[in-house]
Amino acid sequence: MLEICYTSIGTIHTPHKSRENMPIQPLSASGIKASVELDPEYSKGLRDLESFSHVILIYHLHKSEGFDLDVMPFMDTKTHGLFATRAPRRPNAIGISTVKLNSIKENILQIEDVDILDGTPLLDIKPFFSKFDNRSEAVSGWLDKKWQEKNREIKSDKRFITSK
Amino acid sequence: MLEICYTSIGTIHTPHKSRENMPIQPLSASGIKASVELDPEYSKGLRDLESFSHVILIYHLHKSEGFDLDVMPFMDTKTHGLFATRAPRRPNAIGISTVKLNSIKENILQIEDVDILDGTPLLDIKPFFSKFDNRSEAVSGWLDKKWQEKNREIKSDKRFITSK
Repeated sequence: MLEICYTSIGTIHTPHKSRENMPIQPLSASGIKASVELDPEYSKGLRDLESFSHVILIYHLHKSEGFDLDVMPFMDTKTHGLFATRAPRRPNAIGISTVKLNSIKENILQIEDVDILDGTPLLDIKPFFSKFDNRSEAVSGWLDKKWQEKNREIKSDKRFITSK
Repeated sequence: MLEICYTSIGTIHTPHKSRENMPIQPLSASGIKASVELDPEYSKGLRDLESFSHVILIYHLHKSEGFDLDVMPFMDTKTHGLFATRAPRRPNAIGISTVKLNSIKENILQIEDVDILDGTPLLDIKPFFSKFDNRSEAVSGWLDKKWQEKNREIKSDKRFITSK
């Protein structure tokens, strides 16, 4: 086991102030606007990003503590192995979201379709590239089945919030 | 700025022993097989993952050191802002790859379409879910244009390897 330390490069500001009643993924957060405040020392690295319609944000799930290997995700009433879910409580609390990029001005990115908690520390921004990132043929196990049964309005509840 | 520390949860074993002449993304690594060795204490978390055709691996780019905000990526002969590229030298050296999942036996995942360096420390495994992760409508700026000009056989070279 190797310890790996990173330093946040900015902060994600969103309307989601609480971990309850949040959209559980970007697609169920359709139209929700937010912003990324990149630390100004990195602004130069944003050049040419505006020509992309979507970006992948990688961030630290800063309110997530601990984990269980067997979890009942928001999308189901049965348990699954942790790595077969997108549950936020994980050995390493790293989140990824693909969001719409609306504009960039200096060090501020205006984004849309945001399922991220307010104040989340940003670790990286990567351009979304269809040829690298889309897998139109993907089969998604229990999630495919549950998605057909439920609608996309599922929200988070208290289940991954620890009282610590 | 906030320091965030993670601990690797396993190791990715691949045929790519050197940072030169590597496929630059999973789609140009078509058919290349590799394995993920999850630390056995996490094996239980893999339950139900085998029903997914693809997984997203999040890992530490352990050979990457330092970064420039202005970079010339493998796909172009002009420079772009770092965050408009997938170059491996970044403020936080976090890599993500969507790979095919072929099988799981105990703590070992057999995977395919792998663009990852041998010995890479694993940080997280997430199931790829079409509804969350595909963006068929995405527009990808300079990358779309270059992809049309070049073929998918582009390989890495020495440009992001520091001598340290």
